Amino acid sequence: MAVTEGSLFLETVHMIHVLAAPAKLPLILFASRPSATTTAFRRSVTANRMPLPYVDEILTNAIPRPVPMPVPTGSAVPMTPTKLSVIEQSKRLAAYTAVDQHILPHHKVIGIGSGSTVPYVVERIVQQGEQLNKDRVFIPTGFQSKELIVVSKLSLGDVDQFPTIDVTVDGADEVDSELNCIKGGGACHLREKVLAEAAETFVLVADYRKNVQYLGTNFPGVPIEVVPFAYAKVLQNLHHRLGSPNATLRMAKAKAGPVVSDNGNFIIDAPFPVEAMRDPYKLMARIKLLTGVVEVGLFCHMAQAAYFGNQDGSVTVKSRLEGEVIEETLPSA
Amino acid sequence: MAVTEGSLFLETVHMIHVLAAPAKLPLILFASRPSATTTAFRRSVTANRMPLPYVDEILTNAIPRPVPMPVPTGSAVPMTPTKLSVIEQSKRLAAYTAVDQHILPHHKVIGIGSGSTVPYVVERIVQQGEQLNKDRVFIPTGFQSKELIVVSKLSLGDVDQFPTIDVTVDGADEVDSELNCIKGGGACHLREKVLAEAAETFVLVADYRKNVQYLGTNFPGVPIEVVPFAYAKVLQNLHHRLGSPNATLRMAKAKAGPVVSDNGNFIIDAPFPVEAMRDPYKLMARIKLLTGVVEVGLFCHMAQAAYFGNQDGSVTVKSRLEGEVIEETLPSA
Amino acid sequence: MAVTEGSLFLETVHMIHVLAAPAKLPLILFASRPSATTTAFRRSVTANRMPLPYVDEILTNAIPRPVPMPVPTGSAVPMTPTKLSVIEQSKRLAAYTAVDQHILPHHKVIGIGSGSTVPYVVERIVQQGEQLNKDRVFIPTGFQSKELIVVSKLSLGDVDQFPTIDVTVDGADEVDSELNCIKGGGACHLREKVLAEAAETFVLVADYRKNVQYLGTNFPGVPIEVVPFAYAKVLQNLHHRLGSPNATLRMAKAKAGPVVSDNGNFIIDAPFPVEAMRDPYKLMARIKLLTGVVEVGLFCHMAQAAYFGNQDGSVTVKSRLEGEVIEETLPSA
Amino acid sequence: MAVTEGSLFLETVHMIHVLAAPAKLPLILFASRPSATTTAFRRSVTANRMPLPYVDEILTNAIPRPVPMPVPTGSAVPMTPTKLSVIEQSKRLAAYTAVDQHILPHHKVIGIGSGSTVPYVVERIVQQGEQLNKDRVFIPTGFQSKELIVVSKLSLGDVDQFPTIDVTVDGADEVDSELNCIKGGGACHLREKVLAEAAETFVLVADYRKNVQYLGTNFPGVPIEVVPFAYAKVLQNLHHRLGSPNATLRMAKAKAGPVVSDNGNFIIDAPFPVEAMRDPYKLMARIKLLTGVVEVGLFCHMAQAAYFGNQDGSVTVKSRLEGEVIEETLPSA
Repeated sequence: MAVTEGSLFLETVHMIHVLAAPAKLPLILFASRPSATTTAFRRSVTANRMPLPYVDEILTNAIPRPVPMPVPTGSAVPMTPTKLSVIEQSKRLAAYTAVDQHILPHHKVIGIGSGSTVPYVVERIVQQGEQLNKDRVFIPTGFQSKELIVVSKLSLGDVDQFPTIDVTVDGADEVDSELNCIKGGGACHLREKVLAEAAETFVLVADYRKNVQYLGTNFPGVPIEVVPFAYAKVLQNLHHRLGSPNATLRMAKAKAGPVVSDNGNFIIDAPFPVEAMRDPYKLMARIKLLTGVVEVGLFCHMAQAAYFGNQDGSVTVKSRLEGEVIEETLPSA
Repeated sequence: MAVTEGSLFLETVHMIHVLAAPAKLPLILFASRPSATTTAFRRSVTANRMPLPYVDEILTNAIPRPVPMPVPTGSAVPMTPTKLSVIEQSKRLAAYTAVDQHILPHHKVIGIGSGSTVPYVVERIVQQGEQLNKDRVFIPTGFQSKELIVVSKLSLGDVDQFPTIDVTVDGADEVDSELNCIKGGGACHLREKVLAEAAETFVLVADYRKNVQYLGTNFPGVPIEVVPFAYAKVLQNLHHRLGSPNATLRMAKAKAGPVVSDNGNFIIDAPFPVEAMRDPYKLMARIKLLTGVVEVGLFCHMAQAAYFGNQDGSVTVKSRLEGEVIEETLPSA
Repeated sequence: MAVTEGSLFLETVHMIHVLAAPAKLPLILFASRPSATTTAFRRSVTANRMPLPYVDEILTNAIPRPVPMPVPTGSAVPMTPTKLSVIEQSKRLAAYTAVDQHILPHHKVIGIGSGSTVPYVVERIVQQGEQLNKDRVFIPTGFQSKELIVVSKLSLGDVDQFPTIDVTVDGADEVDSELNCIKGGGACHLREKVLAEAAETFVLVADYRKNVQYLGTNFPGVPIEVVPFAYAKVLQNLHHRLGSPNATLRMAKAKAGPVVSDNGNFIIDAPFPVEAMRDPYKLMARIKLLTGVVEVGLFCHMAQAAYFGNQDGSVTVKSRLEGEVIEETLPSA
Repeated sequence: MAVTEGSLFLETVHMIHVLAAPAKLPLILFASRPSATTTAFRRSVTANRMPLPYVDEILTNAIPRPVPMPVPTGSAVPMTPTKLSVIEQSKRLAAYTAVDQHILPHHKVIGIGSGSTVPYVVERIVQQGEQLNKDRVFIPTGFQSKELIVVSKLSLGDVDQFPTIDVTVDGADEVDSELNCIKGGGACHLREKVLAEAAETFVLVADYRKNVQYLGTNFPGVPIEVVPFAYAKVLQNLHHRLGSPNATLRMAKAKAGPVVSDNGNFIIDAPFPVEAMRDPYKLMARIKLLTGVVEVGLFCHMAQAAYFGNQDGSVTVKSRLEGEVIEETLPSA
């Protein structure tokens, strides 16, 4: 008896209870051989709806759901390597722990961000099994996470259809002791902030270099997305009114002129003095209120937890517990 | 015994053959009551993969796939009215016939266009049953067909994931005797042409006013999408080199200035003399080769068939058969 | 002796003092006949720089600065009519008064907005004479004011080159007793706000219907420009968190789907309860801080004065004087 | 007697002939000291138009035309270095020769492109003198040439106002023996092609590496600008129908994901076999006719001449003469 890989063969089924919405039963599509029971069920379906002359064909000639094409950029999607250095092992452990603790079976709408630790996040999600992932929708923050979702054969969704997300996992350019972070090195921070804000739980994964006491320690400039028409005025305001005299327009490398974001805007990188970075929410609000600013790469009071892979293979976890941020370190696997 | 609506209850299952990819089995998620067989299966799953501590929870706490939110524009999606005028009845008949003849069970990737007849197309597709539509992906040509797909609870897809489409059904502004057509009244003709070209079968549905001998009879201007930077130069070329002295930039009504397309471009409406419209492919190629032109609203040699709802309730069908276009009329339902 | 219209003929010039930047002297270009003085000057120019073999030709064959082409939209630019109704006369008087009081000879960078009163503003600026306008640069807020500037033969400039503007004159959808206003009916409020903010003096001109005690009286919805990716989330936040349950996406009329702004974004129109409109700055800040919001059509603490044309031909002027807004009425002309 | 730098002081002027359009006379603005003649002229102006109460102020308080601000990107504009290597000297000689032969005094609308040789072009244009450049308008192909124009204090214009250009000088990625070229390494080739096509004379300047017999010798990929929505379909068509199996989407370096052009589009780099590159016009037309393609970086039958700086300091000139392309070499300066 030949059966297709991935199908289920029910050798003898004594009874099939057809409930109120029989069309929701995908089972029969996968029945590899007609039996008295499946034949009766087929008749019942046919009897209860408008006669579809091709029902038989469906039942015996199941065509699987089409598989989305991997996005053909010609560039390799960053997949997780097979043999890992110690730091990569720690990043993987950070990602796995984040997934195990935050992406639970009842979470059905998952936001996927970007960064070098995120591929391990998707790897762990895939390990939760197709059974679980089949009914999940994954919302990417950008081109690269879209690609990662598609090649991992997970279902893509748009945030305009699923404006409430269960959990979003994303990378960061820097995370402070209060779980505020800088994002925008990849110029995707608008979409990332939408998915972070839409999520009931927002979790960060990164390597140890992103783990700082205060924002601006290693990643000095705050990425600011601005409307092209207004960029010169925003720069002027940043220079003279907001105390960032060295704010500059980010220039592209693979094209002439400035970087253009996926939303068609420009990016300004604005370094601020230490004291301004100590109150990132206030700074964010002052920048965002400037006319022409679309979004600021400061994410404040948004993350519930952050997982950092360390150089020695261990994982540092910062998590918010009753308003306090607790830091602990998990030993290497 | 309480079962959830839409689930399947398998009263006694004697044996479950787990095949090579057991994760592809969604069945167990819907088993409402553990049995010896399901319990054994659960153990087998657990044994063959990394211990997932929540497997039990999955089995007993099935959560349905999340339902996409209807796009909240505040505007009503054009749904099909319940009581229909004669002309609406004929448009519905045209749409139903088009679907019955072209959207077959083995068609899994379907492109959905726009126009006043298209809601009936989606209505008929929905009537084919959730069983069939569950494994289909629907690619919209624009904002409105996206909305129509979502409110009809069909699965959305992007053309960059599914670059080959089985069938695309779309409206038109005018269709000639050779099944060439003008499109672009809604400024979506670039996306529409991508979906038309990607489709193995491209079918038009419209009302009788769009059925003409030669293009330009009732809808004089050819819609041309142009890059904003280049529009003045394109207009100049249309006026002086391509013989459309009355070509104009399309101005918006709900905003100041010109219409901006969903791709961020402008639209020029360019009327041409009768003789130029007699060879629409040649005209299309001449316009498209102008620097700054993104796409031309002339679709030539693309449609296999067109269905027009007539004023008397009948349907006129034009279809390509061995190179010839045959026209016939179906009586009203 | 034939001289070109517009040139100056200096019959006898005894001496020309060449100052530090002699190249800044356009005079000689217009000398219609060589004289000993001009010949000596020409020699001096030649001697002090690299020999330009065609200097003679320049001196005797002056070609005027090229005239910009009126933007060829095929649509008529709204010019001021010749015979005016009483309300049009009052709008003209409002515009003329605004220009006479605010656009002074030493103002060199002028922002020009949109609205039905603005063409009279440009008409009055043109009446100030080419002499004065020759050294001015005019920055438009959008496509239509750009057209108005070009057909009036004034010099166009970009705000990224002239981020500080002397005076900006613009229309409004509604102006309250504190000179706060609603703008964005034309979906240009982002550019308008950039030019308003960049201006040392920001002046409003409108007809009497826009003159209200509190914002929201006649023009209920606040126009909000949002990034397309985030619009559903912004709508959700407006509905549920900011108290605008009837906020809707603005749909286009001359294209399918939503209005797309000149910046490639969507527009939401959000009506708020009276009490929220009483503190428009606070409301503006709350909306602008939403992730995905690009700009809010509430302009607070920005205008110095507003001029309204009344139905009886008179003009109402509101102006800020030492923090207080004074209202007075000028009789009809 | 104090005079402002850059002004002209006319010590004694015996007579001023006021011609038909007196407002076109900027002279009086620069008169540093009232005299009987200027006073009489002032009276005459006043008498012939509506009383402008501030005429006196103008006459005695001349304010110069505002100087556009250099675009504040924080990145240095590529200016020509002071001490030049041999190759830089040859590029400068190539640029100077191109300007001397093609940008003549009567040319008033000049297109400026990009590339490492173009700064020398602008340097030479500036050397032609402010007198000449005062009445010229310069149209940039992109952000960088806009910056170059502004810092050189030349007047900017838009191609929608000046759709006919006298001369455009631009760089190229490769130029063949027929003066066809590849452009698009900087992702600006759409705007560059608009300015090339709008120009009566289109001239190329580059270094010796760009001088080839056949296109594709050193610069294998043809840059193709595509609408994001359609890129996967265009890639598929390039791979399977147009014979470019290695065409890839260009990925960005200073942002995540693909390069986004200044028009909001993506860029595909498509290498073609030698035989396809031998007929670049035919190849260009085939690519441009693909749905979703905005512009192709193949410029055929457009350039009149190309100037290449060689390693030994000499300049190779290719120019079209009665249909033939002649190549000659100028010795180093």
